[in-house]
Amino acid sequence: MEKLFIIKIGGNLLDDSGRLSTFLEMFSAIAGNKILVHGGGRIATRIGARMGIKEKYEAGRRITDGDTLDLVTMVYGGLVNKQIVAKLQSLKCNAIGLTGADAGLIPAVKRPVGQVDYGFAGDIVPGGIRSATCTLLINQGLVPVFAPLTYEDSGTLLNTNADSIASALGIALSATFEVRLIFCFDKGGVLERPQDPDSVIHSLDPERYRQLKSRGVLNNGILPKLDAAFEALAKGVSEVVIGDTAQLMQHVQGNISGTLIHA
Amino acid sequence: MEKLFIIKIGGNLLDDSGRLSTFLEMFSAIAGNKILVHGGGRIATRIGARMGIKEKYEAGRRITDGDTLDLVTMVYGGLVNKQIVAKLQSLKCNAIGLTGADAGLIPAVKRPVGQVDYGFAGDIVPGGIRSATCTLLINQGLVPVFAPLTYEDSGTLLNTNADSIASALGIALSATFEVRLIFCFDKGGVLERPQDPDSVIHSLDPERYRQLKSRGVLNNGILPKLDAAFEALAKGVSEVVIGDTAQLMQHVQGNISGTLIHA
Repeated sequence: MEKLFIIKIGGNLLDDSGRLSTFLEMFSAIAGNKILVHGGGRIATRIGARMGIKEKYEAGRRITDGDTLDLVTMVYGGLVNKQIVAKLQSLKCNAIGLTGADAGLIPAVKRPVGQVDYGFAGDIVPGGIRSATCTLLINQGLVPVFAPLTYEDSGTLLNTNADSIASALGIALSATFEVRLIFCFDKGGVLERPQDPDSVIHSLDPERYRQLKSRGVLNNGILPKLDAAFEALAKGVSEVVIGDTAQLMQHVQGNISGTLIHA
Repeated sequence: MEKLFIIKIGGNLLDDSGRLSTFLEMFSAIAGNKILVHGGGRIATRIGARMGIKEKYEAGRRITDGDTLDLVTMVYGGLVNKQIVAKLQSLKCNAIGLTGADAGLIPAVKRPVGQVDYGFAGDIVPGGIRSATCTLLINQGLVPVFAPLTYEDSGTLLNTNADSIASALGIALSATFEVRLIFCFDKGGVLERPQDPDSVIHSLDPERYRQLKSRGVLNNGILPKLDAAFEALAKGVSEVVIGDTAQLMQHVQGNISGTLIHA
């Protein structure tokens, strides 16, 4: 099986054009099959503020109302995605910008209303990803760049967590490729003591994860990422790395400087 | 050679969600190979106004400054394009939303500064379209949906006229397909007397076009569309039709109710 790198980048990086450029230069230098998944970043908040769209929260959770859906469709699906694509093209990386709606790649369902109505938030349909189309694009030397948007059958776009998209793509494509899933963020890896940047856990298996969770030492923000990572691993992804964006080439080359998630 | 329909829609249609829905239902019902190219519409002006971005004109021509480029990237490349794609997916039409930057499909150059500095306006590089990639997508049953954006080598996106994109795609793909290029708009066709909707010219060749232009009877707005149409025809496109959006199925089936442009 050929290797496939799926690399997820998030908020802070997207808001810093200098760091983003450096990252895209590294990304374009990765040889072989690769996918980039990007999150949102604060630019949507900033543009929303200029348009008079306020962020909405319910029980501490962010809500995607109709205005917010239009905003993230514009900012993530348009501005952020296409700027990344154009920059990668200039670096001779044959990027193609996509949302989950394009080519029907990532079907989702609107999250059911429970205690919280999340609005136009999408949960990816398990087994729904059109991996044949995705594989076709990759085999043509194209580099898919995914914005954190999916869609449902009714024709509505849905706001979807970028970690979940990266993980779901990894699972779907692990039938065809040997997938290494790399979550890039601003820390050196998963930290045992959130205040101590030197406390990177270099190796994490499900048992140790359970222990750390039960001790309550992990930063709450990292838990969804770790859940996505372990799910990907359980469902076919070969390796998952969580680490510093600046160390991308190490994560790709296998000199793990961040956290290696393994079974 | 297989047939390929390239259909261009513009402003007023995009601003009317009911008419747009009706159009997309018709479009999705077209059998065989097809491409949709959409323009902008007044929604960018409306969103720009909410963001405090003013439209800029110089010598009566609209200028794409940096803010405006970001705005059209968001609105055309994100909101309009992805909403169309999601709607087409719901109609079982396997749409994939693209700008000229995606897969490097439509390279362009920033328009040289002459009497007017148009800013980030792109002129398509003659012969530059990556028709092999476009053909590959079409042969997979995908339906490309193009936003009116291109890019240049430096990694900058560029605002580009949708008629020009439709025409350039038609020319590039006429080596592989028998292309019928259909420009949809709000009138029944090219009008001999702009105030008289019944004065549709059903058949127009270069000689008659020259005559009409020299008499100055044609609406100024139609001239760039006609220039694009005749250029496409001269460079390999089989047929060009300019007509009423509501008559799309007639334009496709060859019962020309609009203006047929021919050599």
